[in-house]
Amino acid sequence: MPGARLHKRARAPRVPVIRCGAMLASGPFGCLVFYGALLVVKMYALAIVTGQVRLRKKAFANPEDALRHGGLQYHREDPYVERCLRAHRNDMENIYPFLFLGAAYCLIEPSLTVARWHFLVFFLGRVMHTVAYLFALKAPTRSLSYIIAQIPCFSMLVQIIVAVASYA
Amino acid sequence: MPGARLHKRARAPRVPVIRCGAMLASGPFGCLVFYGALLVVKMYALAIVTGQVRLRKKAFANPEDALRHGGLQYHREDPYVERCLRAHRNDMENIYPFLFLGAAYCLIEPSLTVARWHFLVFFLGRVMHTVAYLFALKAPTRSLSYIIAQIPCFSMLVQIIVAVASYA
Amino acid sequence: MPGARLHKRARAPRVPVIRCGAMLASGPFGCLVFYGALLVVKMYALAIVTGQVRLRKKAFANPEDALRHGGLQYHREDPYVERCLRAHRNDMENIYPFLFLGAAYCLIEPSLTVARWHFLVFFLGRVMHTVAYLFALKAPTRSLSYIIAQIPCFSMLVQIIVAVASYA
Repeated sequence: MPGARLHKRARAPRVPVIRCGAMLASGPFGCLVFYGALLVVKMYALAIVTGQVRLRKKAFANPEDALRHGGLQYHREDPYVERCLRAHRNDMENIYPFLFLGAAYCLIEPSLTVARWHFLVFFLGRVMHTVAYLFALKAPTRSLSYIIAQIPCFSMLVQIIVAVASYA
Repeated sequence: MPGARLHKRARAPRVPVIRCGAMLASGPFGCLVFYGALLVVKMYALAIVTGQVRLRKKAFANPEDALRHGGLQYHREDPYVERCLRAHRNDMENIYPFLFLGAAYCLIEPSLTVARWHFLVFFLGRVMHTVAYLFALKAPTRSLSYIIAQIPCFSMLVQIIVAVASYA
Repeated sequence: MPGARLHKRARAPRVPVIRCGAMLASGPFGCLVFYGALLVVKMYALAIVTGQVRLRKKAFANPEDALRHGGLQYHREDPYVERCLRAHRNDMENIYPFLFLGAAYCLIEPSLTVARWHFLVFFLGRVMHTVAYLFALKAPTRSLSYIIAQIPCFSMLVQIIVAVASYA
């Protein structure tokens, strides 16, 4: 059994069991998990808003939902629901790569202060992006917040690629 | 060379090389990887179903695919293809954050039993969600399975945020 | 404070602090981070292409963007913008699961050479997929590159599930 084999390996005298908590204790990882978790909360909140807008505007993507809420005439699109979906999709295009880049960045052992600034700027940029999207703020507010959030991502990308290029 | 530098650091006498297998051997991580892998299989299966529905219904999103399968008239949308795409998108909105939350949760060292219940409930909820979506089960079956899957996610979120709040 | 507790644990005499860099130094992880980072660059590039096509074709998803670029008549869809969005969505459906599978695969300690081939084939398949999508290459070029990229994913999936099945 491979699982058993891993267990044995991990308990062999010269290879200590990893206390996973030690990864968080390294600082940057704990900081990434904190802001990553808040960004997940932000995405969940957006999903709930979308559901509430569907109910209030009576605009359902599925006939079975429309039937439950008054009839098949409510199986329809709505511009504000579409806006929520675009905001959510943009989050998927940007927040998920950030979680990967952030984890890889922590592995190259940045200082906690520098790492925290990277994560904080991304977090604030993405919150601003969602607000700009949902309230349809005048252009280019949304694009600006997108660009602000991309700056730490590009910074992490460059540092990561330099650090691991030798493993290419 | 930064790669070389990492190598030297890792091999320094007081810092042991990490046997990555040891992370799996910690239990919760192995369990997350197991259910995470099954969820990826579920998503791949959904992609294959979508492709098969496109072929059977002759409804292609791209003209080059329509041309290959009978002509440009098959470059069109189909309600059941759209349903598959919505199911897949909902997976992306929920399963990817689960993978992040699950990994962060493992880092705070939960008991294996409690962790397994979190992952199992999410897994079953998401399988039920896909079934409810593909077979257009009567509302609110799909919403209920969505909510069931969100419960372990919220539980992990709270525990994670409490554990790493000091790194904010 | 749980954070403080983790700190103390990690600094206890028998549990060494994890130098996160050691994970990269294990080889496969460094290699995954390298190709993963390049794939994120590829996705960012696609997002920039989409934005440029929107500007050139004057086709904006949001009225506030259309207003800034000439008027509400440019709040409209465009077939080539839709094509870019489909390419990007397909990336989200496939590259994000790869990042999870790749990380889990590294935890089961593959040889660096075998791991590198898995990641390289996926990377090349996905680059080919994007090129085939953006230039609307004749079918089945795009499907073929999709299938090529899925081969290492299936291989990793099988190895992962076998390795962690005992934690189910």
